[in-house]
Amino acid sequence: MCHTNDEILELFEATLRQMQTPEEPELLYTPIIYSMSGGGKRLRPVLLLLSTEAFGGEVAAAMPAAMAVEVFHNFTLLHDDIMDNAAVRRGKPSVYAKWGGNVAILSGDAMLITAYKLLAGLEGDKLKRVINIFNDMALEVCEGQQYDMDFESMERVSVEDYILMIERKTSALLSGSAMIGATLAGAKDDDIKKIYRFATELGLAFQLQDDMLDSYGDEALGKKIGGDILEGKQTYLMVQAMSRATAEQREVLRTTHKMADISDNEKIARVKAVYDALDVKHATEQQIELRFERALSILDSLSIAEERRVHLREFARNLMGRKK
Amino acid sequence: MCHTNDEILELFEATLRQMQTPEEPELLYTPIIYSMSGGGKRLRPVLLLLSTEAFGGEVAAAMPAAMAVEVFHNFTLLHDDIMDNAAVRRGKPSVYAKWGGNVAILSGDAMLITAYKLLAGLEGDKLKRVINIFNDMALEVCEGQQYDMDFESMERVSVEDYILMIERKTSALLSGSAMIGATLAGAKDDDIKKIYRFATELGLAFQLQDDMLDSYGDEALGKKIGGDILEGKQTYLMVQAMSRATAEQREVLRTTHKMADISDNEKIARVKAVYDALDVKHATEQQIELRFERALSILDSLSIAEERRVHLREFARNLMGRKK
Repeated sequence: MCHTNDEILELFEATLRQMQTPEEPELLYTPIIYSMSGGGKRLRPVLLLLSTEAFGGEVAAAMPAAMAVEVFHNFTLLHDDIMDNAAVRRGKPSVYAKWGGNVAILSGDAMLITAYKLLAGLEGDKLKRVINIFNDMALEVCEGQQYDMDFESMERVSVEDYILMIERKTSALLSGSAMIGATLAGAKDDDIKKIYRFATELGLAFQLQDDMLDSYGDEALGKKIGGDILEGKQTYLMVQAMSRATAEQREVLRTTHKMADISDNEKIARVKAVYDALDVKHATEQQIELRFERALSILDSLSIAEERRVHLREFARNLMGRKK
Repeated sequence: MCHTNDEILELFEATLRQMQTPEEPELLYTPIIYSMSGGGKRLRPVLLLLSTEAFGGEVAAAMPAAMAVEVFHNFTLLHDDIMDNAAVRRGKPSVYAKWGGNVAILSGDAMLITAYKLLAGLEGDKLKRVINIFNDMALEVCEGQQYDMDFESMERVSVEDYILMIERKTSALLSGSAMIGATLAGAKDDDIKKIYRFATELGLAFQLQDDMLDSYGDEALGKKIGGDILEGKQTYLMVQAMSRATAEQREVLRTTHKMADISDNEKIARVKAVYDALDVKHATEQQIELRFERALSILDSLSIAEERRVHLREFARNLMGRKK
């Protein structure tokens, strides 16, 4: 019997609670525990473990890899928060804000090494394959972060380049996790390729939905609207709007977030008025549906029994906040 | 026949010249090539390759590991230069100074991952053992850097703690490199332990000599005197002096570098006068000799033929700038 999403999460959290680091030097290791115990949805380890069970693998055997991808994910947050000058992470001070940049750099480095230490705890003959997947995934995440920073200073980013960026920055860690889980279970190459594509499409759908909720989320559900607009970030809505806009509309999209003489609410309203006029909400929703449906149909094509597939489908729906 | 130090260095440089990275994103990969082609003595890869040959291994088979330790070493420099706010590295602008902190963080991360990519290129069944040695070595280097930063804000560091710090910060990468080389050659566990101790002692001798030359180097040989003193750094001379000083002398040692009303030359002279009065130069020289002799005698105890040992002895002497 395969575990449900909730059961997998509980198994993972139980292992995580037992994670130990050396006590000293304190400023190297305390931020690691702080960061790892800060919550989060544990999406990547859960997907890894669900993938391994889907192909008949054991949760216990894959657990070191699940820990490794979660430690890696938290490493990226430590360093991203320095680069983005972010003071808050999951409702608490970021490591960067709490201990400063030097501690966040060095503790982050120690976390990246710790991820490899966890990987090296895998039993069996698959270590080399798993490390190769992990390395490629990790470099893609770095590439995605660099493209994201590059985009900040670019006036215009093509829709294609934006998709390529989020494929690296958001999807790569999900697709790598799914591949590692399947590889550890001894899945066939064809299925490993498919689960990679499943997680890639799902990651894109997830990121595009995140982009959309920044402009069209429900404030009643506690979602703060307009953060990306105020930061002048490239999002799917922005790159779509720029590709459709008149010269006049482009001027509004490019300059509004830098204006000094209007309120934040006015800035958000100005940009959203252009989005509405260009119908980018609809375009984004279509793209989300396309990617999500593609993910589900790739999932259906895996050569596994339906009772093994059902938990991955549940994962996909949970990720997108959908009941059915 | 084993290669000489010079031949090994040439083989390594030839491989390094062929190192390739993806072209994009440019700001992620250009700093890697810039950093790797910036020279340096290639101590760690040369020691790794000499160690492998000493135990009958092939240079070509160990080359990916030699590249990995050099990439790792340069990764530490990228991140250290941010933490130390260092503008110059090997006579050129540091990556941090040339491209800024964010690029140095992220390119450094990509270098650390690249080091593991290189390791994963090793043939044969020793990958897991090598990765375990590499992971432990890498974490020790991070610990050493953290202790070094901790010491900056401490008034007094014990001689023992100082030695433990440089064992991590300087020796660990040398001893790890030597162990990896020996492991790849299939050396016996006892010899692997010995070559670890050889490189640990040698690294200590090297770092202590570096500390001493900051105060007692030959300016005629282009050595700038007193940099550590002006920065108020903990060095072997400082921790030895503090352990022997009167209350009055301690005051001089602790406060001189922060004084605003005297010149750099006067600061250096004041601190060195205390060093001279406490004879710490002699104590440091003794410690260097002790560590260096210990390294050579461990080397002599390896269960290998003398013609295989001779190149490691040459490495040790070159490192210490000694002809015989």
